[in-house]
Amino acid sequence: MIPYQDILTQIYRELSLSARTGKVANYIPELGSVSPEAFGLHLCCLEGGDYQVGDANEKFSIQSISKVLSLALALNLEGDKLWNRVDVEPSGDPFNSLAQLEYEAGIPRNPLINSGALVISDILVSHLKNPKQDYLDFVRMLAGTEAIQVDKRVAASEAKWGNRNRALVSLMKSFGNISNDIEIVLDFYFHTCSIAMSCQELARTFLLFANQGKVFATGKEILSPSRTKRINAIMQTCGFYDEAGEFSFRVGLPGKSGVGGGIVAVHPGYYAVGCWSPPLNPKGNSALGMSALELLTTHTGLSIF
Amino acid sequence: MIPYQDILTQIYRELSLSARTGKVANYIPELGSVSPEAFGLHLCCLEGGDYQVGDANEKFSIQSISKVLSLALALNLEGDKLWNRVDVEPSGDPFNSLAQLEYEAGIPRNPLINSGALVISDILVSHLKNPKQDYLDFVRMLAGTEAIQVDKRVAASEAKWGNRNRALVSLMKSFGNISNDIEIVLDFYFHTCSIAMSCQELARTFLLFANQGKVFATGKEILSPSRTKRINAIMQTCGFYDEAGEFSFRVGLPGKSGVGGGIVAVHPGYYAVGCWSPPLNPKGNSALGMSALELLTTHTGLSIF
Amino acid sequence: MIPYQDILTQIYRELSLSARTGKVANYIPELGSVSPEAFGLHLCCLEGGDYQVGDANEKFSIQSISKVLSLALALNLEGDKLWNRVDVEPSGDPFNSLAQLEYEAGIPRNPLINSGALVISDILVSHLKNPKQDYLDFVRMLAGTEAIQVDKRVAASEAKWGNRNRALVSLMKSFGNISNDIEIVLDFYFHTCSIAMSCQELARTFLLFANQGKVFATGKEILSPSRTKRINAIMQTCGFYDEAGEFSFRVGLPGKSGVGGGIVAVHPGYYAVGCWSPPLNPKGNSALGMSALELLTTHTGLSIF
Amino acid sequence: MIPYQDILTQIYRELSLSARTGKVANYIPELGSVSPEAFGLHLCCLEGGDYQVGDANEKFSIQSISKVLSLALALNLEGDKLWNRVDVEPSGDPFNSLAQLEYEAGIPRNPLINSGALVISDILVSHLKNPKQDYLDFVRMLAGTEAIQVDKRVAASEAKWGNRNRALVSLMKSFGNISNDIEIVLDFYFHTCSIAMSCQELARTFLLFANQGKVFATGKEILSPSRTKRINAIMQTCGFYDEAGEFSFRVGLPGKSGVGGGIVAVHPGYYAVGCWSPPLNPKGNSALGMSALELLTTHTGLSIF
Repeated sequence: MIPYQDILTQIYRELSLSARTGKVANYIPELGSVSPEAFGLHLCCLEGGDYQVGDANEKFSIQSISKVLSLALALNLEGDKLWNRVDVEPSGDPFNSLAQLEYEAGIPRNPLINSGALVISDILVSHLKNPKQDYLDFVRMLAGTEAIQVDKRVAASEAKWGNRNRALVSLMKSFGNISNDIEIVLDFYFHTCSIAMSCQELARTFLLFANQGKVFATGKEILSPSRTKRINAIMQTCGFYDEAGEFSFRVGLPGKSGVGGGIVAVHPGYYAVGCWSPPLNPKGNSALGMSALELLTTHTGLSIF
Repeated sequence: MIPYQDILTQIYRELSLSARTGKVANYIPELGSVSPEAFGLHLCCLEGGDYQVGDANEKFSIQSISKVLSLALALNLEGDKLWNRVDVEPSGDPFNSLAQLEYEAGIPRNPLINSGALVISDILVSHLKNPKQDYLDFVRMLAGTEAIQVDKRVAASEAKWGNRNRALVSLMKSFGNISNDIEIVLDFYFHTCSIAMSCQELARTFLLFANQGKVFATGKEILSPSRTKRINAIMQTCGFYDEAGEFSFRVGLPGKSGVGGGIVAVHPGYYAVGCWSPPLNPKGNSALGMSALELLTTHTGLSIF
Repeated sequence: MIPYQDILTQIYRELSLSARTGKVANYIPELGSVSPEAFGLHLCCLEGGDYQVGDANEKFSIQSISKVLSLALALNLEGDKLWNRVDVEPSGDPFNSLAQLEYEAGIPRNPLINSGALVISDILVSHLKNPKQDYLDFVRMLAGTEAIQVDKRVAASEAKWGNRNRALVSLMKSFGNISNDIEIVLDFYFHTCSIAMSCQELARTFLLFANQGKVFATGKEILSPSRTKRINAIMQTCGFYDEAGEFSFRVGLPGKSGVGGGIVAVHPGYYAVGCWSPPLNPKGNSALGMSALELLTTHTGLSIF
Repeated sequence: MIPYQDILTQIYRELSLSARTGKVANYIPELGSVSPEAFGLHLCCLEGGDYQVGDANEKFSIQSISKVLSLALALNLEGDKLWNRVDVEPSGDPFNSLAQLEYEAGIPRNPLINSGALVISDILVSHLKNPKQDYLDFVRMLAGTEAIQVDKRVAASEAKWGNRNRALVSLMKSFGNISNDIEIVLDFYFHTCSIAMSCQELARTFLLFANQGKVFATGKEILSPSRTKRINAIMQTCGFYDEAGEFSFRVGLPGKSGVGGGIVAVHPGYYAVGCWSPPLNPKGNSALGMSALELLTTHTGLSIF
């Protein structure tokens, strides 16, 4: 039995001493107003335990972490023909690169970069009756709580500053890879990015991916074991913009980050862990979050490698 | 005195024997329905003569040729601070490349590629009271005739298939290089591309650039001699997508082509010439049109080089 | 206890029925002369067993698989300051891309693409007294047999057709990231690529990476557990040119392929497996080899995800 | 009759007052030791006159200006099939870009960037009996003086720091676009770059291109009028790295610059002009030289546009 609580406490102590580096995202004012000192860590075990330190119950904007949940729902609804519209390769370029999308005829490199998540949003808009509400209900079901909301000010601000995403959708529509109206797809996409969750809620939600595709609390199967592994594989290779290799190298777990400072990681068969610290490194990932998770796999002595 | 009519007649004969190659543009149906056999050539001399062969009075969609007229009007209205928002270098990439625009922070390479012409459109929308009508009036004034119209079916079709241009404007707006509403800029841009003119009208209109910036018929100065030279220099280096070098190499005159099959070229101090043949070579320029103009500078023995 | 031999036999049967697709590499004649029908699979368990089907004892050119062994030796000799000269990110571009190397100032994306392996070769040339012999001795020690040779005809042919690799080394030397003479680095690199091994020998050699860095037969530690994990993480994200995501997605194990048709994969804590089938898919990886390993993780129900 | 001497004197006065900007090239020490204050300007008229101001008789390293002379000689020897191995388009990328060359399968964009000049060098090595001496003799014949030398210290230094050029040749050889030994091509290329000439000698040499391909002093035809025009067209679109458009825009003449601070320009039918000022602008062209030539076409009121 691994003493998870002791390990989290030790990580908390070690990181308290380390200097904060990095910069809180401020491309929209709503993200920029968060305290750079905030730090939370919450781990949910498949064996049953819940462990946490710091601000693990404070809500923050999950941003790109939602891309994994969108992929899970789209794969559930659309099945494997989804892969005709988005690839599974790391991008090797910044998360919002138009250049690569142009060279590759409107097929995004993977579903965890912006262009890929916009295609996934298009798929969800086609399938869902009330896309925004249905999506929120899906996330609440995974998290096991109704207490999850979309931050509408964040969504509105994303829309206001969303011209690069508009460029991505427009380019993909010119290649025939977007079915719905551009503005409807964007509106839905900004909705998914603007969900607010705590570390605890994130860890509970992502326990699905440690648990072969079943919701831990209810046993309900959302994804087959095979599709679950595939999503984990995609997180491993594509979950951290152009720093996926660095995260694999240092942490050794599948995971996903967001510009709100959140990171979630999964050890299949063991646990899911949510982490939050707003200041980002130059590649756009939570600087302290990466350190915390590196300490976690170092102190437990366990990673997928 | 150069026997222009004899030379045009000889070019017409030589090209009649040559096999037609290339493909009529069909990305919108309105362009695709044009006869691939159409061919016209019209030359207006500063010394006074007008010479033509073939379908030189038939109207066609001038498409990108309008980019030069937009630049002339914008330079007239905005002055040299226009160059802060668009560069003067050849692009080395296809005419609608997003990749380059992304690497270069939303500043288009030159005003004769789509992105550059969209910035110019944004400038014109800011300056003109009734942008569409004022623009049409400007072109009519240069051509010396009221008989110039916008083909509204072409404009509507451009708008329908215009998602790549929407991507370009959105990306530039994300970099702060577009002031007006995206849809208004696009609507105006498609209007300018959808002007229909004949070879004769094109040659008369572009005589301005052979005449140090003065309208030939009226003597009215639109541009200073210095700005006129600069527009000619830009046509020379940037007027033929990624085939500007080939056109300089074979023809040796400043010019501009459009996907409607038109090409206009200017010999400063001598003449302007309009040419039309719809089938395009793989780089998007009129195949026969380039040959016709190459024969023109060969048979006259005169080019700017 | 997993019935590995039964599973291998079943894979062999299933793949016998499937049509061979792909093309044997023939950029050098020595590789092109191999039988496209050859197929071997060998699995070594940490629990002790050895299992095989097909041509598992036949030698073939390991080519890029050697890049992992070079990295292991260089990390052992140079330590972590090696990471100043080569990154750990997937490349998102073909394995021999100069473009990326140019944009990134001569620092290769990772040690498993050609440019990265050439930097590793430069490091080994600096450290080893008799680079070629010492390297061969290292590989023999890992494999537990003296019966491993370099195919000198292959090495000579690689050198003859090696101008793209010469371009990579020259470019990196212009950025100051190569210390030794260009021709000496190339000669050593071609030597490492030209080692011939069987599936059995490959599996035994790579058991190191399933065994926390210790040679299985002797217990000798070559790498610390932490560095071993890191090499596994790099194989996972970078081991298959621009198809690393596809391999992770379908197989779910760290691994490395070579253009000779070999693939080796590692399940940390469980086994190493060597596979060989010469015809390559369009991305340059053994088509049948990828299918065989996908069947392996499907039938065992085990992968790292 | 244009008062050239008065105009040159005026330019000299105007530029004396302007602040020197830019940086002397120092990638090899021999170039870095030149005085940043040096400035010369020499104009040779087809009507017969020679005009100069400043250090117009001082020798400097012509560097890339030699690319035009190499092209002229290669076109003379090889004829138009030369164009199968090198294109005539502006590059849109820095002068030594490997990326573009890689995407375009080893065919350089034009003969005035390094890769193109290396292909031209390969052609010359194939044709000339004693390549280095024959090339020098050709340049002396054009300049009408035996007093032209290669600076061997510069050539040796270029060779020492020439790994990026080695990368370019190696890459092109891998695509089959280099026939001779890599080191022999490089050695010849560095020889051509290391010729030292004065502004006066440059202007006399380039009078060929203003004179329809005939050496002015002797009347000997080196190139046909048609090929001469084509070389002028290539200088116009490709002569200034990624600043060809700026030079066309400001100066309006075909020309070529070198990192030694030299610029030569040609007004076909009128004159050739050589200019020298070592400090380079950020694009690698002589900052003061560009200003001097801009003043020249402004004060004469004549350019090709």
